[in-house]
Amino acid sequence: MRSITSVAYQGEPGAYSEQAIFDFFGPQDAVQPVPCATFDDVFDSVTLGKCDYGVVPVENSLGGSVHRNYDLFMRHALHLVGEVIVRVRWCLYALPGVGLNDVRRVISHWQALAQCERTLSRLLPAAEREPVYDTAGSVKMLAESGRRDTAAIAGRRARDLYGLPILCEGLEDDPSNYTRFVVLSRSPELPPQAGATLAAAHEYKTSIVFAMRNRPGALYRALAAFALRDIDLTKIESRPLQGSPWEYVFYLDFVGRADDVNCRRALDHLGEFATMLRVLGSYPRASSPE
Amino acid sequence: MRSITSVAYQGEPGAYSEQAIFDFFGPQDAVQPVPCATFDDVFDSVTLGKCDYGVVPVENSLGGSVHRNYDLFMRHALHLVGEVIVRVRWCLYALPGVGLNDVRRVISHWQALAQCERTLSRLLPAAEREPVYDTAGSVKMLAESGRRDTAAIAGRRARDLYGLPILCEGLEDDPSNYTRFVVLSRSPELPPQAGATLAAAHEYKTSIVFAMRNRPGALYRALAAFALRDIDLTKIESRPLQGSPWEYVFYLDFVGRADDVNCRRALDHLGEFATMLRVLGSYPRASSPE
Repeated sequence: MRSITSVAYQGEPGAYSEQAIFDFFGPQDAVQPVPCATFDDVFDSVTLGKCDYGVVPVENSLGGSVHRNYDLFMRHALHLVGEVIVRVRWCLYALPGVGLNDVRRVISHWQALAQCERTLSRLLPAAEREPVYDTAGSVKMLAESGRRDTAAIAGRRARDLYGLPILCEGLEDDPSNYTRFVVLSRSPELPPQAGATLAAAHEYKTSIVFAMRNRPGALYRALAAFALRDIDLTKIESRPLQGSPWEYVFYLDFVGRADDVNCRRALDHLGEFATMLRVLGSYPRASSPE
Repeated sequence: MRSITSVAYQGEPGAYSEQAIFDFFGPQDAVQPVPCATFDDVFDSVTLGKCDYGVVPVENSLGGSVHRNYDLFMRHALHLVGEVIVRVRWCLYALPGVGLNDVRRVISHWQALAQCERTLSRLLPAAEREPVYDTAGSVKMLAESGRRDTAAIAGRRARDLYGLPILCEGLEDDPSNYTRFVVLSRSPELPPQAGATLAAAHEYKTSIVFAMRNRPGALYRALAAFALRDIDLTKIESRPLQGSPWEYVFYLDFVGRADDVNCRRALDHLGEFATMLRVLGSYPRASSPE
């Protein structure tokens, strides 16, 4: 008997988060994606042991960070044990027989609407845009509603699942549209599937979160811990420190493993003046697919 | 005859953006707030000269930055000529006679929903949350729909405008809830009303945006331009560089005027290695109200 890995994600079947699960944990018969209504539910599902892992988006190359998930890293004690990057191409769905001229309203997740903004302004200048909770879910809603004045934006996989035709494909304003997902776990141990990413990339990344006393030069000193050791930062994100208006926590991604000697020293150095420092995880670095 | 200053904002009358306009440009008979459907419309309205100024939120002390507006700074050539901070308190509105037990759905702007998340989980654990385009607009929608299963979240001013009763007040999870707005103008010249902020704060802030070649230590070197001159950074925000996946532009706010000698030198220093650098504006620093 072969064991099935259960992985929580936010959205409906057909969402890019589900695609990310197959890309990382595939083949499809060895993994069970578990849809959740919200990102909070994904974190809870892993924390409570209902699922083995969770997969959540942290950043889109056009839309930027998914800030909600950064905030949830802080609220939970989960580990980041993998990353996966998915190429995003958006399709416009409508009921059979509906043409562009009939569309008065476009529904989708707000990030998808934002990524297609210029294309929509050209194709459907008068159509109202209405954010809903999920991309694939917007196609499901459309199929159920039977509305002939509405179109929905989702990835290609939604077609097989909800049986609606695609009016146009490649709606994104910029073709270099990728979403980066991370894999959440209760344990810092890497899942066996991470080996495939590592074989492709040969290097690790580490994600940390820290806070510092707010005084001139504070962030500069924090970055010195890495710059003075030639450690490459790939991402910095600031989020509000709850309860302290206009103070921030910083999320950093850098190349290397937290237990490499050089990285360990950088983290110790940062720890000397950080008021809070947590290593979220070290995991094989993913590359952007074609 | 007295001239009226017209100021564009996103939302419906009763929104906190309108409150910010009165706080900065008041009294109410000298300023004409002009509601717009989207942030893009606010920027367009000022760029095209339809309004004298625009006021947009850039950051909430709980929810973080309003990233859309950062991206719009880059797309437009407008100047930042003021800032104003408004205390945010959220109220739950419903139709007359509707009680908490009747509510199955809560509508509001997603930022307001996020700021009240824990309170809502306690008060209305089973209610669905549905993001709509605006807070005050959600009360207007509710009043027009007549739905007795729905509640809306908006500020106190919506009560006078849409005539619905308030079920609860102070819904925000954290009472230190402030939103920072900036004033947009076609000219870098400060509006006469900025004098009031300056008299209170005695200091200026400057907002800039820059990009750098992506290599180890790049951000550290950029921050050195300020840290080595004891210039205090109040905010850093990274946004995707469009067309270059996983590269970023950085928005910085610092204390001082762009034409102070020390700040001028820091900007020249940063300009030596930045691939793009633009001063968005220098303006009197606002403080958080009680």
